[in-house]
Amino acid sequence: MKYCSSCGSDQIEFNIPKEDNLPRYCCHHCGMIHYQNPNIVAGCLLTFKGQILLCRRAIEPRYGCWTIPAGFMENHETLEQAAKRETWEEAKAVVNELMLYAIVSIPAISQVYVLFKAELAQAIYAAGSESLEVQLFEPKAIPWDELAFPVIIRCLDYYLKDRATGKFQTHIDTIYPSSQTVIHH
Amino acid sequence: MKYCSSCGSDQIEFNIPKEDNLPRYCCHHCGMIHYQNPNIVAGCLLTFKGQILLCRRAIEPRYGCWTIPAGFMENHETLEQAAKRETWEEAKAVVNELMLYAIVSIPAISQVYVLFKAELAQAIYAAGSESLEVQLFEPKAIPWDELAFPVIIRCLDYYLKDRATGKFQTHIDTIYPSSQTVIHH
Repeated sequence: MKYCSSCGSDQIEFNIPKEDNLPRYCCHHCGMIHYQNPNIVAGCLLTFKGQILLCRRAIEPRYGCWTIPAGFMENHETLEQAAKRETWEEAKAVVNELMLYAIVSIPAISQVYVLFKAELAQAIYAAGSESLEVQLFEPKAIPWDELAFPVIIRCLDYYLKDRATGKFQTHIDTIYPSSQTVIHH
Repeated sequence: MKYCSSCGSDQIEFNIPKEDNLPRYCCHHCGMIHYQNPNIVAGCLLTFKGQILLCRRAIEPRYGCWTIPAGFMENHETLEQAAKRETWEEAKAVVNELMLYAIVSIPAISQVYVLFKAELAQAIYAAGSESLEVQLFEPKAIPWDELAFPVIIRCLDYYLKDRATGKFQTHIDTIYPSSQTVIHH
């Protein structure tokens, strides 16, 4: 932030306002304090008869890598609406019943993933504009080395472990930079 | 947003960028698109031997009303860190083990509440700078008509119902404007 979005002044400094304890972008011309806060990424782990739906990214970052349908929640949406919208936009799939499945903080990039689990009623899906292709994978065929983000690895890990026990539960977790190297399967 | 925070231009228009489907604040001078997304409010429902901790707000909105310790999650925090920090700032209470308890979308104001449940090890608490007073309430003494926000009513409702069954689970819910009038207890 170089200019105040409220008054246009360039008298912006990143310092701690009175009665606060964290630095903010403060306008010393009009007094406005510009807060910046974490973003929510909402998405769906979709299954169909034991297979998992993955999308190959047609956009950066991680162009060409596989992910689950997920993206930034928009203003005036509910979490479920955001997850269903992303599922439609990226995988042209429609889901109804969602189970809250994983909530993952990623403090290094100030994001919180809220992921739902849902079973597709039918194997109907297609690549949306942000996907190169969309495909159902048997667990043994998951392209672990080509997954887009650590949080996707984490979510698929949960799914396979829960599936083994037959008990699906809501997970809450954090991804730290050091956890980006994961050994699995 | 009246001025571009990147270039200072006043050529800001709220319209739909190419390859998007929602209006954004777009700078027609430098091309920057300024996204605005929901904020996360993290907090704790604290209990001590069946009593519930509430804080009376020393700030607007809802000055003088009762709430649970909760506030905006900051960049570079985890959800748990945010909830514990708010609990310390507003109620000077320290909690360790947190249970993910309620995730509530409030689309009308683009907020998502992520609330944890925790049992205080001891009845040690005090009013922080944003609280007039902090107090433990027996369920029958909860000041329902003086609670600050519908989401607080919702969360306390969950707690009392779960307590009656003895089974505490994670709740996911939405608060719509029409649900602001709640009849209870």
